[in-house]
Amino acid sequence: MSDWKSLEYFFKPKNAAIIGASNTEGSVGFTIFKNMKLALGKNAYPVNPNHEIVQGAKAFKSIKEISDQIDLAVIVTPSKTVPNILRECVEVNVKAVIIVSAGFSETGEQELTNELKKIISENPQTRVMGPNCVGVKCFETNVDTTFFAQDRMSIPKKGSLSFISQSGALGSMILDWVSKEEFGISKFASYGNAIDIDESDLIEYLCNDKDTKVITLYLEGAKDGKKFFEVAKKTTLKKPILILKGGKYDSTSQATASHTGSMAGSAKVYEAVFRQAGIINTDGMQDLFNTAKLLEKEKLPKGKRVQIITNGGGFGIIMADHIIHRGMELAQPSRKTIEELEKELPGIKISNPLDLLGDADAQRYRIAIKKCLEDKNIDILVIMCLFTLSPLKPDDIDKMLKKRRPSKTMVVIAVGGEYTEKRLEKIEKLGYTTFDYPNTAAKSLGHACWYADYLKRKKAEK
Amino acid sequence: MSDWKSLEYFFKPKNAAIIGASNTEGSVGFTIFKNMKLALGKNAYPVNPNHEIVQGAKAFKSIKEISDQIDLAVIVTPSKTVPNILRECVEVNVKAVIIVSAGFSETGEQELTNELKKIISENPQTRVMGPNCVGVKCFETNVDTTFFAQDRMSIPKKGSLSFISQSGALGSMILDWVSKEEFGISKFASYGNAIDIDESDLIEYLCNDKDTKVITLYLEGAKDGKKFFEVAKKTTLKKPILILKGGKYDSTSQATASHTGSMAGSAKVYEAVFRQAGIINTDGMQDLFNTAKLLEKEKLPKGKRVQIITNGGGFGIIMADHIIHRGMELAQPSRKTIEELEKELPGIKISNPLDLLGDADAQRYRIAIKKCLEDKNIDILVIMCLFTLSPLKPDDIDKMLKKRRPSKTMVVIAVGGEYTEKRLEKIEKLGYTTFDYPNTAAKSLGHACWYADYLKRKKAEK
Repeated sequence: MSDWKSLEYFFKPKNAAIIGASNTEGSVGFTIFKNMKLALGKNAYPVNPNHEIVQGAKAFKSIKEISDQIDLAVIVTPSKTVPNILRECVEVNVKAVIIVSAGFSETGEQELTNELKKIISENPQTRVMGPNCVGVKCFETNVDTTFFAQDRMSIPKKGSLSFISQSGALGSMILDWVSKEEFGISKFASYGNAIDIDESDLIEYLCNDKDTKVITLYLEGAKDGKKFFEVAKKTTLKKPILILKGGKYDSTSQATASHTGSMAGSAKVYEAVFRQAGIINTDGMQDLFNTAKLLEKEKLPKGKRVQIITNGGGFGIIMADHIIHRGMELAQPSRKTIEELEKELPGIKISNPLDLLGDADAQRYRIAIKKCLEDKNIDILVIMCLFTLSPLKPDDIDKMLKKRRPSKTMVVIAVGGEYTEKRLEKIEKLGYTTFDYPNTAAKSLGHACWYADYLKRKKAEK
Repeated sequence: MSDWKSLEYFFKPKNAAIIGASNTEGSVGFTIFKNMKLALGKNAYPVNPNHEIVQGAKAFKSIKEISDQIDLAVIVTPSKTVPNILRECVEVNVKAVIIVSAGFSETGEQELTNELKKIISENPQTRVMGPNCVGVKCFETNVDTTFFAQDRMSIPKKGSLSFISQSGALGSMILDWVSKEEFGISKFASYGNAIDIDESDLIEYLCNDKDTKVITLYLEGAKDGKKFFEVAKKTTLKKPILILKGGKYDSTSQATASHTGSMAGSAKVYEAVFRQAGIINTDGMQDLFNTAKLLEKEKLPKGKRVQIITNGGGFGIIMADHIIHRGMELAQPSRKTIEELEKELPGIKISNPLDLLGDADAQRYRIAIKKCLEDKNIDILVIMCLFTLSPLKPDDIDKMLKKRRPSKTMVVIAVGGEYTEKRLEKIEKLGYTTFDYPNTAAKSLGHACWYADYLKRKKAEK
């Protein structure tokens, strides 16, 4: 088992040397040094033998010239130069090295890869991430070795979701997607060819990271299946891991070999491993994103009894179908709830889905939500709002949904065009978790219930 | 079998009487008469015994006072008054009646329902839609009995997708959703309690409607299973039917009984019926919407061999997994294509997914797309664009994707935030079919392949 504490130097270094730091705007060496200067100020050192000055800072010919003890070195030089540079890093006892450079096993350069492996195995005190990776982005320290095009994507706010990805591109997409949302990211790491640090090391680190509440993972192939299983099993007892597995079939796993040089292996084997380790196995990017959002924002449900409140009959029925399809149940509200609702909502048939009818106003929603939140027979509350046919005005949302307080698991669903999208944004800002389709909400709720159930079974085993 | 031609009067009446037309802004009787006046001008007659003038037009005490022979009557009066009004419509030989009013079998008013049924069975020359429905919206004639809140939703453009729904609310959501898209609607009909005209009659009408290319349907329970099967089977040989079934499980089908008064029945039975009738069985609103878009915009694929072109390795692998999961295959390009691509794209490994690498420019995409479109070993082309890490500039899209000409089935996928969404909008405007997630694209392509295969099998049987 690796020493996860050594990974701290990647996310929280006191200083860093950027080897290949450049003056050429737009280049990888330029972007990374610029980012690191923003995070570490004078403690970010440019290394480039061809320049005296890089972006206004004195450049060093080699890392060995720097008098400070270096925590993190980032290498962005051509692949052939990397082994020698790594040797120099090891000599001066650098704690953490990120090799951004590509051109190793993924392009068939096995000899270069073996050279790196040899250096790493002889010098375990220096931990290495990569090669062929975009490295890390830490939202607490602003340490950032990614070279994402800032004019083409947005950066999310600080939060408690952390994302590990073999693929840097996937990482850029999830960050860009989260930037539209009301929740945020703690740490991102893309570890590329995983010559030293792999997904298991990163999971273990995030398991022990107090800022991380939910771990998400894009994985093509686990480097060490047994290690992965053991680490994941321990971690899921503390916090959820969501996975998206790339290369599920024989024909697609061939493609992963040329992507990150790893073998993807059989889908069925992985599925069983994930299930036994308590890992939530998402079925695509949309499912991964949505479920990450749900778990970042909501508490785990206490059970799988779902109450649906709607103002569209068919809309509620569609959700009820999805709820059952995803292994949950329609809740049976208590006698007390039914009687109180019958009294306070005359003309409304109290059932599940609870159809407040097309002319439902904010008051009707508010009564229904309040009573259902109080009912212990209900574990999950699903609020569906059809704005197109409804008398609900934009201001009614504040009356209908008070500023969210932590309570039972609850989601709000609305489907439609621009008007509806604007209403959903407002509801998100009030602290609610929203979905723009019933099926995606049900799928994510199903995952949350499965994980909550897994934890219950594990507790019972003890 | 019903005479589908009689339904023409609902969508293309030469005149219409709105019984319950009102001066009260925002009321249903106000909105419908206003809409109909816009469509038919002086040939829209308000009927209201309490007013001399409605919205500037001379009001009639009863439909019997109107001297013109009336094609369409729309009833928006309290349920108790409806039987007598319907009798009057029948007396003056109205061709088509839409009963918008609610308060019949869906609220347990069986006696009123039976009264309507008796009148209808004795007078088959008058066709009735409803009660408890929002009626029709025809994008060719502008005839519109819906009372959707125009400030809360947008209306799509004219196109070739038609939508039949037991639920009016579902209809308003699909119209609102389509309004964001680059394709349009031909006809919408919400038939409510289906006391006379049911889903089968409407399907048969749309089957014979030259403006309708794709039929979509939200169905809780078929009124007459055998009729539905026969009509659907005939129709799918001419154009695709997409269905979303509400009330798939015992516990959810109870809810449909109180929604539109129909029994939803077993999911398994319906699934088998849909499959045998060539109906595309979508699994939710998102799937229904996306597949409708794909079929409205794209030709049916000739086969299921899919070539993926991407600039993100993991991104392509995820799509490849979805493609196989949905019953399609990864295409094997011809030797000619491979050789030409190897020559024109040095440094790129020619495979499937074809990874043009993170630094792919417009030219690289253009070459790859051109060669793959020419290759007869490829039935479907999936273009994936990762904009976040890419050197592709907004203007490059025009260079990369020429204005679309009808060719083989092709979709473009990009995932991300605002920057990416803007790029996707531009690509849609060039005539391409876009998706914002790999899984939704694969699901819709899978449906299209299944339907194309169904048609092939039916042809072979002949």
